[in-house]
Amino acid sequence: MKLTILGCYSATPRALTNTTSQVLEISNHMFLIDCGEGTQIHLRKHKIKFNRIKHVFISHLHGDHFFGLVGLISTFRLLTRETDLHIYGPLGIKEIVTLQMKLADSWTNYNLIFHELTSTESELIFEDESIEVYTIPLDHRIYTNGFLFKEKEGDRRLDIDAVEDANINIAYYRKLKQGFDVLSEDGSLIKNKTVTLPSAKPKSYAFCSDTTYKEDIVPIINKVDVLYHESTFLEKHANLAPKTKHSTAKEAARIAKKAKAGLLLLGHYSTRYDGLNAFKEEALEIFDRVELSEDGKVFEF
Amino acid sequence: MKLTILGCYSATPRALTNTTSQVLEISNHMFLIDCGEGTQIHLRKHKIKFNRIKHVFISHLHGDHFFGLVGLISTFRLLTRETDLHIYGPLGIKEIVTLQMKLADSWTNYNLIFHELTSTESELIFEDESIEVYTIPLDHRIYTNGFLFKEKEGDRRLDIDAVEDANINIAYYRKLKQGFDVLSEDGSLIKNKTVTLPSAKPKSYAFCSDTTYKEDIVPIINKVDVLYHESTFLEKHANLAPKTKHSTAKEAARIAKKAKAGLLLLGHYSTRYDGLNAFKEEALEIFDRVELSEDGKVFEF
Repeated sequence: MKLTILGCYSATPRALTNTTSQVLEISNHMFLIDCGEGTQIHLRKHKIKFNRIKHVFISHLHGDHFFGLVGLISTFRLLTRETDLHIYGPLGIKEIVTLQMKLADSWTNYNLIFHELTSTESELIFEDESIEVYTIPLDHRIYTNGFLFKEKEGDRRLDIDAVEDANINIAYYRKLKQGFDVLSEDGSLIKNKTVTLPSAKPKSYAFCSDTTYKEDIVPIINKVDVLYHESTFLEKHANLAPKTKHSTAKEAARIAKKAKAGLLLLGHYSTRYDGLNAFKEEALEIFDRVELSEDGKVFEF
Repeated sequence: MKLTILGCYSATPRALTNTTSQVLEISNHMFLIDCGEGTQIHLRKHKIKFNRIKHVFISHLHGDHFFGLVGLISTFRLLTRETDLHIYGPLGIKEIVTLQMKLADSWTNYNLIFHELTSTESELIFEDESIEVYTIPLDHRIYTNGFLFKEKEGDRRLDIDAVEDANINIAYYRKLKQGFDVLSEDGSLIKNKTVTLPSAKPKSYAFCSDTTYKEDIVPIINKVDVLYHESTFLEKHANLAPKTKHSTAKEAARIAKKAKAGLLLLGHYSTRYDGLNAFKEEALEIFDRVELSEDGKVFEF
């Protein structure tokens, strides 16, 4: 699981700070999460292959989370993309994009498939053989979802030495990975567990931005490996958090602690502060596994 | 007259090349012309005071000319702007912006005044005591206008030594600047031309992007001081120009020559080329006063 932070600041893009966007690589997928203005430029800077992005998840329709989307869609068109592109986001996102395509007389030559979200309950919005993606209903000034990416339990792994010693025909390997007992070449029954190892532990990632402190999300993200939770403010501006429906670093840590997250990643910092260390220090008072998002930082979990 | 090129490349913003946007300072105005994605970031990089921009002119609704507009409007709101903002652009631009403000529940606290353009004839769209702005109907794949900025003849300038020698009361200075004869302190008639100098020569700037070669614009931009004319292609791709409704560097030079422009500024380069020198060389074969736009370049005329 690899996470590239393209931008992690709130409000407006500046010369040295980008608004929210992340690329999550998990189970052979490359998911784009939020798409602030300039995201396509940051994708280029990081040499991320545009064509590998097939799913874009937009948390809400504030500009710092989606003003780069229409430009990205338009650039995909100019690059003569043919692969389908799925967009998950709040109701209205399709109208915004298609209105601009209509007025520019620039329809895409690839399929652009919108999945407009309206539910205020967590729902499964994407699933294939290896992963599930759920919404995490958040509490912000407008309709907002976080997203939970959850790998499925994979196949058992072959213990190659044991398999060879047991003289099993290669045609049975798939059955073994699926957990079945099989027959060896000489006809004896081989118990699955004697020749296979447990599957790799499935990983999970939760993206929660923007939101006020909301304990209701704890059961949804319970025991998530990595939790990105917005931390717009430090304690000295804690009074602004409920007013603007954002969170403080300490509140993010409280959610991480209650959810027993493996790691808390802070982000969506207000640009009023000079540095980021205070965010980490304040969160560490509550929860002991904290990292800072930073524009351009790459995490491998 | 000062022109800052924020971006001058076509199609899509890249790590090192920006799409179209310019700031023209003329007659105490700061006009923003086109607004590709990331324009607000480039304004910050150039330390241009956001609040001085009161008029934005959008040539057409292709993304490389206006995808930065909604972000700029949104940032003005976050900066608690109070000054009116006038947007001049094709019909539909208001719907695009207001739809996004509605869905974000983020109406501006300043007046946002749209002037939607539909005419295919050149028209006066802005005027005050010192300047006029006209549209220049262009021929592109969708409805597109260039813009002509034309200073008005200013007041005559006082010849201070002559005025003092003639013993004229300071209360008459304004009348002198307006071209009137006045009385001296001792009652004699002072002819205006004996104590004033002609006004500074009014300047003009024409912005023409995007367009195929279109001679019809020549009378509109006749004798313009500075002509920015798009030059997407070099001669080796001249066949692409009519197809995509763009121009070559030579075609831009032909327009400049026919219009007797003081200077031709090239721009809107296709990103397929490695350098820009060939654009200048090809244009110079037709017209001898040519400069290259480059991202970040500032021209003072």
